[in-house]
Formats: sequence, structure tokens, C-alpha cells
Amino acid sequence: MRITALAGGVGGARFLNGLLHHLEAHGEVPEVTVIANTGDDITLYGLRVSPDVDTLLYTLGGAVSESQGWGRADDSQRVQGELAAYGAVPQWFTLGDLDLGTHIVRSQWLGQGQSLSEVTGRLAERWGLPGRGVRLLPMTDTPVETHVVISDDDGQRAVHFQEWWVRLRASVPAERFVVAGLDRAAAAPGVLDALRTADVILLPPSNPVVSIGIILGVPGVRDALRGSAAPVVGVSPLIAGAPVRGHADACLAALGLPSTTAAVAGLYADFLDGWLVDPADAGVRLERARVEVHAEPLLMTDVAAASRIAGAALELAARLSGPRSAG
Amino acid sequence: MRITALAGGVGGARFLNGLLHHLEAHGEVPEVTVIANTGDDITLYGLRVSPDVDTLLYTLGGAVSESQGWGRADDSQRVQGELAAYGAVPQWFTLGDLDLGTHIVRSQWLGQGQSLSEVTGRLAERWGLPGRGVRLLPMTDTPVETHVVISDDDGQRAVHFQEWWVRLRASVPAERFVVAGLDRAAAAPGVLDALRTADVILLPPSNPVVSIGIILGVPGVRDALRGSAAPVVGVSPLIAGAPVRGHADACLAALGLPSTTAAVAGLYADFLDGWLVDPADAGVRLERARVEVHAEPLLMTDVAAASRIAGAALELAARLSGPRSAG
Repeated sequence: MRITALAGGVGGARFLNGLLHHLEAHGEVPEVTVIANTGDDITLYGLRVSPDVDTLLYTLGGAVSESQGWGRADDSQRVQGELAAYGAVPQWFTLGDLDLGTHIVRSQWLGQGQSLSEVTGRLAERWGLPGRGVRLLPMTDTPVETHVVISDDDGQRAVHFQEWWVRLRASVPAERFVVAGLDRAAAAPGVLDALRTADVILLPPSNPVVSIGIILGVPGVRDALRGSAAPVVGVSPLIAGAPVRGHADACLAALGLPSTTAAVAGLYADFLDGWLVDPADAGVRLERARVEVHAEPLLMTDVAAASRIAGAALELAARLSGPRSAG
Repeated sequence: MRITALAGGVGGARFLNGLLHHLEAHGEVPEVTVIANTGDDITLYGLRVSPDVDTLLYTLGGAVSESQGWGRADDSQRVQGELAAYGAVPQWFTLGDLDLGTHIVRSQWLGQGQSLSEVTGRLAERWGLPGRGVRLLPMTDTPVETHVVISDDDGQRAVHFQEWWVRLRASVPAERFVVAGLDRAAAAPGVLDALRTADVILLPPSNPVVSIGIILGVPGVRDALRGSAAPVVGVSPLIAGAPVRGHADACLAALGLPSTTAAVAGLYADFLDGWLVDPADAGVRLERARVEVHAEPLLMTDVAAASRIAGAALELAARLSGPRSAG
């Protein structure tokens, strides 16, 4: 069963780790293509950082800091201390020493002319992803950066998504998101094929606006989802209106949308087939009647919970493929 | 008293640290311009490393690893371990975590369009060099790299100086040195002025071929030394024919020269006024009779010894300026 998933950082990575555990526990050899958001990418201290890709690498590679959800376990900040002593900016993004190794080799390899896909593939090898049946693809090899238009004492201005998310903790309202480079971006090699040939397409509980939403903006991706014969099943990133993690509510507000699971499903209305919600949202009514809603506790408290949720998503997908292939 | 010194790495840095201690102990406010060799510079993992500049920064900033003579005290290699795990190359040059901070900010600032002089000045501020009366200048802002022509099983080929020095430990004979970029290099701002306006010019016990020799190859430097009214005093890097540290003998051999203090002085014959040798070499006869030779124990066992040696060099310079200004 070829599974293709779109993914952001922590929520996506935890869900996918659960998916792998679920498949392995059922004796299935995973065949999973992960299309990762690269809109969060940023150049810090001259080094190219891909936060979502890194969180996926570390989580699926068993090296993530469980307490943070991102970054490396048992990391230290000796280098960052030096950067601060030199007065290098910015200082609001913490890079661990072990984590920096990834950014340095990524930057070196990109500087040698390798594409982000190639570099990501090499990084994934070190973390054993191919061995777990996972192909990790950046959504595009074109540098894409999400910027956030805000208004503060300095007037209206655009800041890098990471500055808004990490430094400002999304506390200043986002007026809109501007994704530099997205209109000229081409889907990375394998991305559109993985959507067209999948047996199941999953949308993990990632941020619908600045993670999944950015991937959907890559030319060709949304069309491939609309045209896919595979069932598309999403997992709600909101429980009773609140994001489990992160600031999805602030992101939805920038689009003029309420922080509800129905609003999120509405963003996927043109291609969504199944929608997994928490029992707290079991009564939700979606705009589009043909989307099948299933309730399942969605708090990913540990890998067992993530595995159970992934299993429920696959079950929903199986129910959706059945009638379809019969019809 | 304006002192200008040409310097390589460990030997130069230790001598200059001794010089500062000597001046401070005598109540003098140092006014020292250091012109550093940048021919050893190398790009590793996409980061620009300036080994001699860094050794000068760390030594004069009180942060050097005394046991190594280079690198930072109490450093660790967590990042390098990651680079190795990713299979990044080369692995024969060890970069400490604290040390990496320097390379990252240098590369970031160079990437922003600042010159190596500007960047070096900013790095030196962090280490308090201006506060100690030291102005640290790279010999040139032009990227210059010393390569070594060797013959081995792969035939005749040129390797970067660092590969010959660090990986091969100068065990393969150098047939010649090729300094890429040197002919088109321009002396960095302040370099020629510092030589023209100095009261004393010092050549610390740095490698005469691949450190001092490279600086002398920067267009204009040798002429400025020849034309300077200030006494030029050098400190022999050899004691009884053996380099105190490093592989000066192998470097001299590449020029067809014997490993003797007289041969080193011969390389400076057109501008040298005073030559400090170890008592083991007290009987040395230099080609050029007008160079005044003084014997002084030259083993820089600690900062007190380095300070005493620097004092002897200044004394010799004072003796040489006396008669001259009288004549």
C-alpha cells in the first residue's frame, strides 16, 4: 500500500512515526512518501535551516528531543553561545550543537550545487528513513519562504515566518501570509507522481495554513490531489477549537476563519474524502456532505496514541476506497 | 613605539602574547599592528577557516588551548561528530564546537559582503585585542590559498596546504608551493602603512616559508620592508637546525635550502637588520655581514619565556635604531 502524506513539523512527524509503528506492528512493510513543507526554511548565520524537514528526520530517525518535539535529544548550545558572544544575529532562534551539524552539511551540499531533494535524501539516509520504508521529499527544490505581514510600533511590515512564530510567538496578529517564491516554485522530483500513484493520501494534524497550506500552494499539488483516485484522509489539528500545539488558531484568523475543525476541513474541501476528528468535535457538520467524518481521540500523548490514530486514518481510508472501487 | 609584526600561527601568537606581556610589565601601552598570514585559509564544510588569524585571536584573547597551541581551551567536538555521521568530507581537519562559532560568523559576515579585514576586526573586538593595543590585520582581503605540489601513488598533484600539513603531517616531500591568488592579491587596508610608519618591525619565530614567506609575497609588502626606516628584527624559528614546532625543515627543503637559522635569515637578507638566535646557534655566520646577531634562549616554554624573548628582540631593535639615527 503506497501511502503519500503531506507534513509540517512536530504534529506531522509524530503522526507519521505512529503510522510507521502501526504498519510495522501489523507486519506491513511501509511504503510511505512524505512531502514536507519547506516554507518555514530560513537562512540563519549563513546556514540553511529546514525546520520541518529536520523535525521529520529526527523524529523518524529516533533522535528527536521528545520534550521539545523538535531538535535533537541531549543537545547543547555551545556554538550558539559563541555566536551570541560575537554579536551575531539573530539570537531568537536556538540552534543546538548536534542540530547545527545538519545545517552545516545541508548548506555545504547545497553550495556544491546539489538540489534540496538530493541533500534531503542524503540526510535521510543517515537517519535510516529508507530502511523504514520512508521516502522524504521536500515539497520543492525552489527556495520558498513564508513571510508574515504584521503591524506594530514600526508600522506595517513583513517578518519571516520563524520570527513571527518563534520570537513573537504569534502574539502579534498576522494580517496575511506572503510566500516568497511559491508562485515560481516547481514541485520537487517525485512529489506529483507520489500523489498521482498513491493508494492512500494522508494529511497529518499539521498546521492547515502555514504547513499543509503552503504545500498545497506549490503549483500542481492541489490539482494532483483533486485528480487523485486515492482516498484523501485528513486528521484534524484542532480539538474543540484549540490547536493541540502551535498557533493554528492565529493562522486561521489571518484568513478570516474561525478556529474550528470544520473551518480546517473547509480549506481541503475540494479534495478531502475523510476527516478524523476528536470525540469533542464528533457532532461537527462539514460544508461538504460527502466527506466522511470519523471520531477518534486525537491527543498524540505518545507513540502508541499516534499509532492508534494513524490506524484509524487508514481504516477510514479503506472504508472510502471500498465503495469507490465498487462504484 | 609603533610595532608592526608579521605572523603565522602558534609561534607568532605565543611570541606576540609575550610581547604584550613585556610591554605591559614595563608600563608601556602597546601599539602593535599584527599582519597575519592568510595563505593557510581553507573552506571546510562551506565555512571559511583562517587558522593563523584564529590562533592569534584565541592566544591574544586568552582563550587558546595551551596544550595544542591552537583552537579553543575546553573545546568539544559534538558538531564534528555529526558531520562525520553524515559522511561530510574532509574529516582530517578537526573543528571544535567553540571554534566553529568563529568560522560560522566569519562566513556569515563575509557572505554579507564584508571584507576579511572588517570581519577580522569584528572578531578581534570580541577577544579584546583593541583593548590590549593590538590591531590585527589579515595580510590581504583577497582569498589566497597555499597549495603544495607532491608526488605519491596518485602521481604528481597539488593538495591544499592544510591537507599536507595536517593530514600528511608534511611527511610527503613538498616539491614546491603554489600560492593561488597571491599574484593578484592586494595588501589589506593598513598593511603597507603599518610597515612604512612603524618604529620597529618584528618577525616572530613563524614558519619562514609558508607563514612569513607568504606574507612577503603579497605585492608591496617586501618593498615596504626594504624601504622602511625602522629596524627589522627577526627571531629564528629554528634551534640547532630543528624547528621548535611544525615542519619548517620540510618547507625549507622544498626551496632547496638546509634547515639552518642562517638559511632562514638568508630568506630575509634584503631587509633584515637584527637576528635573534638560540645560544645553540650563537656561532652562526650570516651571508650578509651587516645583520646584527644576538643569542638568547629561544624555547618559548611559557609566557614568561616568550616575554623575555620579545624583550630581547626589542632591545636588539633599540641598539639598531640608535647608531642609524646618529648616522
